[in-house]
Amino acid sequence: MVSKDLPFTKSQIEEIIEEHPTPFHIYDEAAIIKNAREMKEAFSILNGFKEFFAVKALPNPYILKILHEEGFGVDCSSLPELIMSEKAGITGEDVMFTSNNTPPEEFIKAKEMGAYINLDDITHIPVLEEVAGLPEIVCFRYNPGPLKTGNELIGKPEEAKYGFTREQLFEGYKILKEKDVKRFGIHTMVASNELNEDYFVETARILFEVIRDISKELDIKFEFVNLGGGIGIPYRPDQERVSYKKIAKGVKDAYDEILIGNGIAPLNIYFECGRVITGPYGYLVSKVRHIKKTYKNFVGLDSCMTNLMRPGIYGAYHHITVLGKENKSHDKKYDVTGSLCENNDKFAIDRMLPEIEKEDIIVIHDTGAHGFAMGFNYNGKLKSSELLLRPDGKVVEIRRAETVDDYFATLDFEKLKSFK
Amino acid sequence: MVSKDLPFTKSQIEEIIEEHPTPFHIYDEAAIIKNAREMKEAFSILNGFKEFFAVKALPNPYILKILHEEGFGVDCSSLPELIMSEKAGITGEDVMFTSNNTPPEEFIKAKEMGAYINLDDITHIPVLEEVAGLPEIVCFRYNPGPLKTGNELIGKPEEAKYGFTREQLFEGYKILKEKDVKRFGIHTMVASNELNEDYFVETARILFEVIRDISKELDIKFEFVNLGGGIGIPYRPDQERVSYKKIAKGVKDAYDEILIGNGIAPLNIYFECGRVITGPYGYLVSKVRHIKKTYKNFVGLDSCMTNLMRPGIYGAYHHITVLGKENKSHDKKYDVTGSLCENNDKFAIDRMLPEIEKEDIIVIHDTGAHGFAMGFNYNGKLKSSELLLRPDGKVVEIRRAETVDDYFATLDFEKLKSFK
Repeated sequence: MVSKDLPFTKSQIEEIIEEHPTPFHIYDEAAIIKNAREMKEAFSILNGFKEFFAVKALPNPYILKILHEEGFGVDCSSLPELIMSEKAGITGEDVMFTSNNTPPEEFIKAKEMGAYINLDDITHIPVLEEVAGLPEIVCFRYNPGPLKTGNELIGKPEEAKYGFTREQLFEGYKILKEKDVKRFGIHTMVASNELNEDYFVETARILFEVIRDISKELDIKFEFVNLGGGIGIPYRPDQERVSYKKIAKGVKDAYDEILIGNGIAPLNIYFECGRVITGPYGYLVSKVRHIKKTYKNFVGLDSCMTNLMRPGIYGAYHHITVLGKENKSHDKKYDVTGSLCENNDKFAIDRMLPEIEKEDIIVIHDTGAHGFAMGFNYNGKLKSSELLLRPDGKVVEIRRAETVDDYFATLDFEKLKSFK
Repeated sequence: MVSKDLPFTKSQIEEIIEEHPTPFHIYDEAAIIKNAREMKEAFSILNGFKEFFAVKALPNPYILKILHEEGFGVDCSSLPELIMSEKAGITGEDVMFTSNNTPPEEFIKAKEMGAYINLDDITHIPVLEEVAGLPEIVCFRYNPGPLKTGNELIGKPEEAKYGFTREQLFEGYKILKEKDVKRFGIHTMVASNELNEDYFVETARILFEVIRDISKELDIKFEFVNLGGGIGIPYRPDQERVSYKKIAKGVKDAYDEILIGNGIAPLNIYFECGRVITGPYGYLVSKVRHIKKTYKNFVGLDSCMTNLMRPGIYGAYHHITVLGKENKSHDKKYDVTGSLCENNDKFAIDRMLPEIEKEDIIVIHDTGAHGFAMGFNYNGKLKSSELLLRPDGKVVEIRRAETVDDYFATLDFEKLKSFK
């Protein structure tokens, strides 16, 4: 039986539950900060390293503020994410705006905020110019296509809707140059939840080579390269954390060889990770509402897919701890379910766990990224609150739970009365 | 090239768009009513037939009110759905409460409303008794387990979290009888989006046989059987609609043979369909924001998975009409995408369509069920409005679009200011 550590004891959680009814996500601030610092330290060997946290992974302004204090920027993909970042005090070149199929109002807002604008397609150049004017610095997203084999979650790059082809990069930067843009960035993102460090080094090499070729042919100077995100986390207890140092070392070697070696350096190295920054430091805390025995043994929680979609839609593994029973024999097989009328509303299938009783507290691990963020209101289910476990042990509610009134907010029941 | 009909012309939609910006779902009231009446007519050969519309498919109180006028009840699966139904004027035995892993407050509300309460598990009997008291009539959900092979979408019944085993049914009704419950219902739901009529007849036979056996052994009289939902719709233009008449005839034959033949009739026959009631009569209307050519041809819409999850999460087919180009040669291959930073945010992959230009109006068919309802706010994307196309051609907004403020409703930005 392999276990995963928790930043709280059962009695601490019981105390928290007295004030904040389950279910809730709770994020471990100390661990987020420790991890952010480890990342910065490991990557400090890279010129101008900066991480832009992918807001979509954990769109909570308190988390953004904490990460910003650590020197991180944010990576936004929509207008609400840009506005949230601004409200968290994050603007200017602390903001990377990486979107696709972008509406005009988002370009306008990103430009206003002075964000880095990362264009997904060559036809976005005239659109951006028309709706907001070209900023001083423009970044393009590169899709290496068949040059790069895809990882499992993100699929083959040449099937993906994202980015410029190599030919379009050359053409696009040429257009920018003709339009007197002086500062240039380049970006790619070809992985999701990837645990193999070499994958990121290989991606860096591909980008550095294209930077070398474009710099020489067009005689332009790149200010930054955004190597994207996609660093995975060990969802399973027998998996290993990615080594930041190994990625940093590999990227540095490639940088030295391809960029310094060709007289193209310096340029800043950026990342836009989400999952690896907060994923392991979030926990969905639920109570057991119901034990059911039919053809299988079922544990029914007071949460459901609304709180965590990944197992239901991807079949993803999330580790489960039954609080206070960590050391008991894990000799019972359960399906751990939610309460949705949707057959795949299961957090785990055939999971070996200790004997579970009603009211047991169940902790689902690694919900700090793409957890709360992906929740839907299907079946009229309401989203939970989000709590922050501060380094001093205090707990702050950083998002309240949804109410029925929130769920009804876009409905006009007054008008309904006269509807015939 | 096979096409699907639309209840509006291009110029009508253009007029609607002037007042209601895309994207939106629009529901065809006349067609919903026509279908409801066809269903009622076909099933009128069944004793006490009644359909309880599965609210989860299209949780909009205007739609509930329209269906209620046609004599339909509602099938609710959560507290917000119960409250929505009540606000639409639907209470008492017009409400079927079919949930699983149910919290106490939902039993209490359902009991208060006088709804039929359909229990998912034998251990719910004492829970219901304790929290709300047993109602006059109680229904159990049967899971036939390996007796019934599952259909593609819902999987094998014996793997499913739902319902009682056969043994539990006998035990459960015996307990009810001892507790002086006098009226009994029984339910199953073992299909989703099933187009084969025989499947429903076979399910009815299984239920009728269990009713026969329980009635005899326990000497109780069932008042209704709820045959569940799961009737599919022809998402693909070459598929055929299910024949209500064929299902009705098959169910009637089984009823006559098994129930009348054993002196157990009469009992009322209920259904709780969702998809087949509204699915084909809803349309997601979007504009083309962007055309992109890289390794493939992409059409970027002003909608995304938030508006329709089924293609992204199930790979489901939804037919697409390019308004005004219905008769043009469908000789271009496109991926039709949304704007989410999520690789599976595609409404269609390698779909043959006419040549598409920016600003073209794209209609995605069959979004009247499990369309709006399943949307999430991932990437900070906002949900669209819902419109009703009335039989007189007028258009009523039956849900407004979400705003950024709605998206921020559960966040306290004031408290954030002093957060350190």
